Formats: sequence, C-alpha cells, structure tokens
Amino acid sequence: MPRPILATISTSAMAHNLSQVKARIEFARKVHSSINQQCLSKIVAVIKANAYGHGTLNALIGFKAADALGMIDLVDGILCRDNGWTKPIILLEGFFDSQDIEILQHYQLTTAIHHQAQIAYLNEAKNVGKPIDVLVKFNTGMNRLGFHIDQAKDVLVQLNELKAKGIVGRIGAMSHFANADLESIYVNDAAQKILAIAPQFDGQLSICNSAASIRYPYLALQHHENWVRPGICLYGSSPFDIELSQYPSVDFRPTMTLEAKVIAIQQLKAGDKVGYGSLFTADQPMKMAVVACGYADGYPRSAPQNTPVMVDGVAASIIGRVSMDMITVDVTHIPSAQVNSRVVFWGDGGPTIDEVAKATGRIGYEIMCNLAKRVPIKVV
Amino acid sequence: MPRPILATISTSAMAHNLSQVKARIEFARKVHSSINQQCLSKIVAVIKANAYGHGTLNALIGFKAADALGMIDLVDGILCRDNGWTKPIILLEGFFDSQDIEILQHYQLTTAIHHQAQIAYLNEAKNVGKPIDVLVKFNTGMNRLGFHIDQAKDVLVQLNELKAKGIVGRIGAMSHFANADLESIYVNDAAQKILAIAPQFDGQLSICNSAASIRYPYLALQHHENWVRPGICLYGSSPFDIELSQYPSVDFRPTMTLEAKVIAIQQLKAGDKVGYGSLFTADQPMKMAVVACGYADGYPRSAPQNTPVMVDGVAASIIGRVSMDMITVDVTHIPSAQVNSRVVFWGDGGPTIDEVAKATGRIGYEIMCNLAKRVPIKVV
Repeated sequence: MPRPILATISTSAMAHNLSQVKARIEFARKVHSSINQQCLSKIVAVIKANAYGHGTLNALIGFKAADALGMIDLVDGILCRDNGWTKPIILLEGFFDSQDIEILQHYQLTTAIHHQAQIAYLNEAKNVGKPIDVLVKFNTGMNRLGFHIDQAKDVLVQLNELKAKGIVGRIGAMSHFANADLESIYVNDAAQKILAIAPQFDGQLSICNSAASIRYPYLALQHHENWVRPGICLYGSSPFDIELSQYPSVDFRPTMTLEAKVIAIQQLKAGDKVGYGSLFTADQPMKMAVVACGYADGYPRSAPQNTPVMVDGVAASIIGRVSMDMITVDVTHIPSAQVNSRVVFWGDGGPTIDEVAKATGRIGYEIMCNLAKRVPIKVV
Repeated sequence: MPRPILATISTSAMAHNLSQVKARIEFARKVHSSINQQCLSKIVAVIKANAYGHGTLNALIGFKAADALGMIDLVDGILCRDNGWTKPIILLEGFFDSQDIEILQHYQLTTAIHHQAQIAYLNEAKNVGKPIDVLVKFNTGMNRLGFHIDQAKDVLVQLNELKAKGIVGRIGAMSHFANADLESIYVNDAAQKILAIAPQFDGQLSICNSAASIRYPYLALQHHENWVRPGICLYGSSPFDIELSQYPSVDFRPTMTLEAKVIAIQQLKAGDKVGYGSLFTADQPMKMAVVACGYADGYPRSAPQNTPVMVDGVAASIIGRVSMDMITVDVTHIPSAQVNSRVVFWGDGGPTIDEVAKATGRIGYEIMCNLAKRVPIKVV
C-alpha cells in the first residue's frame, strides 16, 4: 500500500457552496429596492489552478449547476469540453498567442481581452463562422491586467469592427477588485468606474469575485446580464481575514480534507530535542507521534510550534520543524494515539484550512493549490 | 498554446552534481590518514517527493550512475523497477503495512526498520526465497524516526532470527542528523553514537545526508560499506545557510529553471497602487510587466517587494503581491521588456533557487517540491 496519506475531495460540499453564492445574490435582489428585477445573475465557478488543487474533472461534478466555468489555461478549457461541459467557458487572462484563436473558435471559449496585443491577433484571424465572445478587462485600481477606463471607447470601436467581420461575438466587460475583502470605500470607487461604462457593452458584466459576491452581492445585479465569478469560497475557504463560519448568513463547507497516519511513536525525556535545527525541546517526559505528511505534500513548512492538528479526534499541536515527509505532534494527552492513528491536518474533522493558513502565515488559496501531486486523492 | 510558463529540468546537471558528491568523498579518502582504504563508499541518490519536484523518471536518467536510489513510497520503488532500475532501492521510512512485505520481496526493495511494529509484520511474513535487505534506523538526537541506540542488541537478535528464517537478508544501520549543516560539535556526538554500534552490522552503514556528505565526507568512510544519501545538493540547492557556490571546492549546478513570459505591460503613474491589498505604490512613473506565473505554480506568495527575477537577461524586482496566476515586476529600466519577454524566476539565467528561498523565507527544498503539476516540464 502507498504511504498513508490521503486528501479527500467532497464534490457535494462544492455543489453546496455554489448554491450558497447563488442564495446570497438572490437575497440581495430581494432587499435592495434599487435593483432592476429583470437583471440576470449567473455564476461562473472559477476552477483555475487545477480547481484550487481539487482537480479540474472533480470540479465538473461539483460545479455541474454553475452557469459557466472560469479558468486561465485553454488546455483546461479543452479538457472540460472533451469531458462534456457544454455551457460557457471563460479564459480569465485571455489567450496568449495568435495560434490560440483557432482553438477558441473550435471549442467556443469566451476570452478576456486585456491588452492591445490580443486585439492585434484577432485582427489577423479568419472568419470560420464561429464568433468568439469576449469580456474586455478593465483596470479599476488593481493595476494588474486590463485597459484603462478611458480606453473603453477606442477598444469598443475596434471590437465592433471585429464583430462586423464575424470574428467576435458578444462583447462584455469585466474588472477585478484589489480590496474586495475590505470596507466598501475601497470597493465602491472601483465599482463605480466600471459601472459607468458598462451600459456600452451588450455582453455580460463580470466584476464580483468571492469576497464581493458575499460582501457586496448587489454589485452582481447591476447590468442586464451579470457573471459572478466566485473562486475561493466555493472551496470552503475564506476570502476575508475572518473565518467564513463567522460571516453572517452564509454556510460554506470544507471541500478538501488532508489526513495521514501515525507511522511511529516516540517517548521523549525532558531535555530531548526534536527534528531539524533541534527547534523543540521537551521540558518533561512526552509522547510524540510521527505522521506521514510533510512540506513535500504541501503542508506549510512555516508551521510554528502549536499549529493545530487532530489526532484520533482529539485536538493536538505540532512540535518541532515540519520536515519534507514527516510532521511530529505532541500526543502526551492522547492515550489512544499509536501507529496507524488518524491525523487530520485540515478539513472535515480537523482544523479549517483557514486556521492552518493563519497559524502558518499563508492563505487558504495557497495551501489548497500547493497540495502535492504525490498525495493520493479520494473523491466523495 | 498553453499558458506561457515552463520548468526546465537538466538531467546533465543532475549527473554532474552526483559526480561532485563522489569526488568530495574520494577527496576525504585521500586526506584523512585514519581512513581504512578498503572502505567502500556508495552513493544513494535520494529521489523522494517526485525527485524534489524534478520528476521520478527524469531522476532515473540524471542519476543513472548512482549506486542506489532512496525514496519513501513503495509506489515509486515499483515505478523505478518497472522502468528498468536494477540497482538497490531503499525505502527510507520503511514500509507501513504487512501487505507491503510481498511487494518488498517481489521488487527486491531494501527497507528501513525504525519501529517494533515493522518487525512484528516481518515475523508474519512467508519465506519466498527472496530475503529483504534492511537498514535499522537509529535515533541519534533527531528524535523523529528510529530505535534508541541501547535497543540495538535486542533489535539485532530479532532480525537475525528473521534472517535465519530467510525473511531478512543483509542487516545494515542508518541514522539521520538533525544539524549536519552546523558545526561538527553538533554532528560528532550523533555520529559517535551510531559508529559505536555499527561494527555489529554486516550490511551497509548510512549516515550522511547532503550536508554531511559535503561538510564531513570522512563520515562516509567509517564502515566496510557506506551508503551516502545526498538529496538537496544533487538538485543544485544548498543544505547550508550559505549558497553552494560559496562553499569551497565544490561545483554544484542548478537542475531546475522556472521561467514564464510577460503577458502585459502597464504604465504606472506616481500614486498608482498595484495588486491585492494595494501593497505597492509607485512613487514615480514606472513601467511594469505582468508575468504568467503565480503562487499556484509554486512561486512563494511570501515574496516581498524587491525579490529578484531576471527579465530579458536583466536583473529586476517583484513589486506588489504575488497572486495566484500572475507576478508583477518593475521593468522601468528594461526598455526591451514587452509582451512575450522571457522572465526567469530561478535557475539557469536567473537567481539561484536559494536566493529566492532566502528572499521569501523558505528553503530550496520546499520551493522545488512545490512546483505545481500545472507547470509544463521540458527535460534537457
């Protein structure tokens, strides 16, 4: 049998979390009197980065009810089409090369357009009777990808010419918030910029990520057709500084559980030092478990002493340094702990991934994405 | 075409680094007058964790000249046998279950024995005419895996009985240093403990990791047959606090290069903020490149401002926060920088992986192992 470590992916929790985002927006529709009730709100499940470490194909099951999928690599777009996904697929960073255009046409992939170079590529494309839907990406303060707002008119002229030639289909707009996890003063300024030009676009408007979908869901109801694009919250992790469970009126569930087994028990004497750099010294006799998980599995090496884990269902703490393939845990208070005891590092029956992130100076996104290829996956 | 990011693995650099370890030990043989010239010293190339992110099968090419391979998962052992590796394979953490014993026998895998539970499993095994070579792991201060030194006699009695029954073959000994990167006072105490009992073992003695192989190579010449087991240095990264290039008389080369292309250029005005959390503010007009690499590719999100990268062969610095799929770089001083410019994050033509590790508060081991599955690999 392989090394005793396992990640469990819950597609039902993924489906549940998707429904929570939908519910949050429909709630906003009811309470905000200014909202035009004819606005459509559709959910784009973001599955980039191998579905945040959960597996692209598992995401096709978990997010079956989504209206579209968002990703960044057209290789993943092809994979989803080949596996039966017929609803829209959106390349959030767009395409990277003129050769990609045939693929966009053939697989009917919607693409972000964030740079003049992409428009130049489209100008050389052939009309094959399959116009490509586009979302023009605008920079509203993130200063990463996107045109400046004052370029909107010029870009629209160019894209409408491409539309007339049958290269481009629907033309929508999108933007990304730099601080949607913070107070609305940081968000409203950016939102107002894109909302001011949105009526010029007949295609979809996409501005809400996880944080904005949960915190400012009314922003997902500002255009005739809105594409909300949650990512991290679909995987049960928080886009905020606080745990999602502390956020009012939402119920997101963990989608990934990482567990491993105890492979050895050590009895320490007072004064015994543990692991690389002899980081930990026992101040009294202790019982310690060595567990088959390390930083090469994706567990953060930055975990300090006292980072929480669960052993045989009992809360326990990491001691010593996380090594490549092993983690050492104080189990002095857990008489049942022995070789083969179950240790949960995060997820169902363990700490939340956000608790681990907080303890280790990381974020949930990073921990999920870094789950190593060598960890066997069980899908439930 | 896929997203423009690429990791290049150099199997010739891997082979070169292996030869450096061998040379270091043969140097020690010449200069230490106390060494018995009949001592054999063999190199076990450690390829656990998908060969530190380089790919297990690539390691079979790079480390073809090794005397043995070390790993932790028997699944990898089977993979290496199935791909033609006929020399010894050592499971450094041993086996985890009684069912594994048939696999050890069938594939002729050498196993560490670090726990009484493993001996109990062996006692139930059938003699199939294929004795299993073992290395008894001793705890010499690391306090992770292994028997205490004073259990040596008892363990040997049990294993010799298993040898008489045809279950166990050669019986060697191993240990692991907690502080081999530090001064010899930390190492000698641990080394003396295992060397004191080593003569009782007719099999191999394995005590030197990368740090000890480079710093204390005479420790690899203390038994009639020594198995040196370098890991990190074979991949061109340092087991020490200093760069390997600063270590005298060795020449290790980078084995992994991570590069990506610029996908957008932004002109910033003074006062413009960049990326999540608006971490960076331009204090003057700047030219900024957005590069197709992020923490979901394995680049550390903890990279602070000024972390080094190379753009079009010119040194440059990261600005703003590393996001999941993109990194922003100040290219004000690089007129050639444009969409499709080449950016090297580490390796050949870029900073060393250890420079990146130092800047980001990580270690080279962790960065290599965390290279994401989604990054395409080119083997040279």
